[in-house]
Amino acid sequence: MSLLTIGSVAFDALETPFGKTDKIIGGAATFITLSASYFTKQNNLVAVVGGDFPQEMIDILVQHGVNTEGLQIREEEKTFFWSGRYHNDMNTRDTVEVQLNVMENFDPVIPESYQNCRYLMLGNTAPAIQKTVIERMKSRPKLIMLDTMNFWMEIAMDDLMQVLPLVDVVTVNDEEARILTKEYSLVRAAAKIQKMGPKTVIIKKGEHGALLFHEDRIFFAPALPLEEVFDPTGAGDTFAGGFIGYLASTDDTSFDNMKRAIIYGSAMASFCVEKFGAERIINLTADDIRKRVSEFVRLSAFGIEE
Amino acid sequence: MSLLTIGSVAFDALETPFGKTDKIIGGAATFITLSASYFTKQNNLVAVVGGDFPQEMIDILVQHGVNTEGLQIREEEKTFFWSGRYHNDMNTRDTVEVQLNVMENFDPVIPESYQNCRYLMLGNTAPAIQKTVIERMKSRPKLIMLDTMNFWMEIAMDDLMQVLPLVDVVTVNDEEARILTKEYSLVRAAAKIQKMGPKTVIIKKGEHGALLFHEDRIFFAPALPLEEVFDPTGAGDTFAGGFIGYLASTDDTSFDNMKRAIIYGSAMASFCVEKFGAERIINLTADDIRKRVSEFVRLSAFGIEE
Repeated sequence: MSLLTIGSVAFDALETPFGKTDKIIGGAATFITLSASYFTKQNNLVAVVGGDFPQEMIDILVQHGVNTEGLQIREEEKTFFWSGRYHNDMNTRDTVEVQLNVMENFDPVIPESYQNCRYLMLGNTAPAIQKTVIERMKSRPKLIMLDTMNFWMEIAMDDLMQVLPLVDVVTVNDEEARILTKEYSLVRAAAKIQKMGPKTVIIKKGEHGALLFHEDRIFFAPALPLEEVFDPTGAGDTFAGGFIGYLASTDDTSFDNMKRAIIYGSAMASFCVEKFGAERIINLTADDIRKRVSEFVRLSAFGIEE
Repeated sequence: MSLLTIGSVAFDALETPFGKTDKIIGGAATFITLSASYFTKQNNLVAVVGGDFPQEMIDILVQHGVNTEGLQIREEEKTFFWSGRYHNDMNTRDTVEVQLNVMENFDPVIPESYQNCRYLMLGNTAPAIQKTVIERMKSRPKLIMLDTMNFWMEIAMDDLMQVLPLVDVVTVNDEEARILTKEYSLVRAAAKIQKMGPKTVIIKKGEHGALLFHEDRIFFAPALPLEEVFDPTGAGDTFAGGFIGYLASTDDTSFDNMKRAIIYGSAMASFCVEKFGAERIINLTADDIRKRVSEFVRLSAFGIEE
């Protein structure tokens, strides 16, 4: 089934304990669509870049089967830019610089050919934009998933509260779940978020895995223990792209299939952190992914019958 | 197979966001033997208490099948006492008071009837005492497991380094693994600890589960997501008791069986935190444990074949 993703396509400049980069390709929608491309070939993007965005980066998306008809190019403007510096623990980071540029008044226009999309991924961006996208779909997608972050909880909580009732799945990290609900227990936090609208809540815990809350059921997904996290940028988006890409490709939104989707998303995220930016997820084979998913099976299987 | 546990039997006084206690029964060996009692009936204790230790608490151990022949009672002295206060996140705590009392010169005497024990659990105590116990076993147990903590890394690192080569399994939490090895990555930390001696390293991550490193293989065990952690005291010991109790009862030290043992240990720990001190693990039925283990199966099973 077809997937529509909206979100940022951007430049990132990164500094980690392992090195630093100049401007490289980044942005939530970039990671999401690249990751989803390994699962679905109906992979439609709505985003905006400036005239400074290199054609070869768009070509990379196209080579991965991403439909860029909905990618607006504003020749006179500049692309969204974010630079950040990770601390030694790789779990915390400082934003060094943000230039909103074209994102400042992003108007998400949905091409007619995207209107039949059954899976909608609202990448991390302003909640008001996320809501506009939903309103501009002529028929409601089968599944709408939304990613957000603490920044929007601080400056646009009302908007966020208006879009949450419209979506099926929300992803946040553990800190954000606690900020959003003022509950320390992630079980209670998830229950509160479910009351805000989405029946399914995914709480990402980085190296500690992820929790899937679906109606009244819980799944605990492991993360692959890694010797080295080289660059965590985009890992959450890559996770989301693998998750919804797998759902779209199987067109099965049952709890059991969501569990499998989380494993695929986690496997994709485990690749993402191995190199700077999107470099690793640009260069994957189906066999790489199959082997990595097998590692997750071995990592978490134990022989006790229910 | 028979299990021998050494460690503290103590009084604790606790304060958590949910309330506070007077002196209640505590101590590593208390939690370990109570937890193990649900798996093995050959459950032998070596510990020391003072004359102030109530007989009814010893009776509780005996009622759970714990052999207290090796429990020394020093009538003229006082029992080890620890009091602590948990912070709101329940993950960090301050020690309010420690009275070593009888533990100050604990001489672990092993009764002749314990000498055939095949499983030895060295509960958290001074590494020199742990080493003495190993030396006093006339034949080496099939499996020796050691628990330790950051406190001993600060004041008795040399002793710890002397006992680690003598044991098969070590348990530490994530922070302690990092202190012990100066490695942030838990994969690297575990590899370094394995080089110090034990082939099997268990890293406890509290609400994030546990990692089992056995030779070159890894298992990621989930923790049960809880609405409320009432009192974490003794959870790590209860985990260890369930783990080694299960191993002793099955007499199978393979990696596959260790994975099952970790699930049983995690299930026991999930009970422990529900009430103050050892109250919850004193009052469990086989059916409670079976149901809880089923929850772990449901929590972490996903339908992907390797």
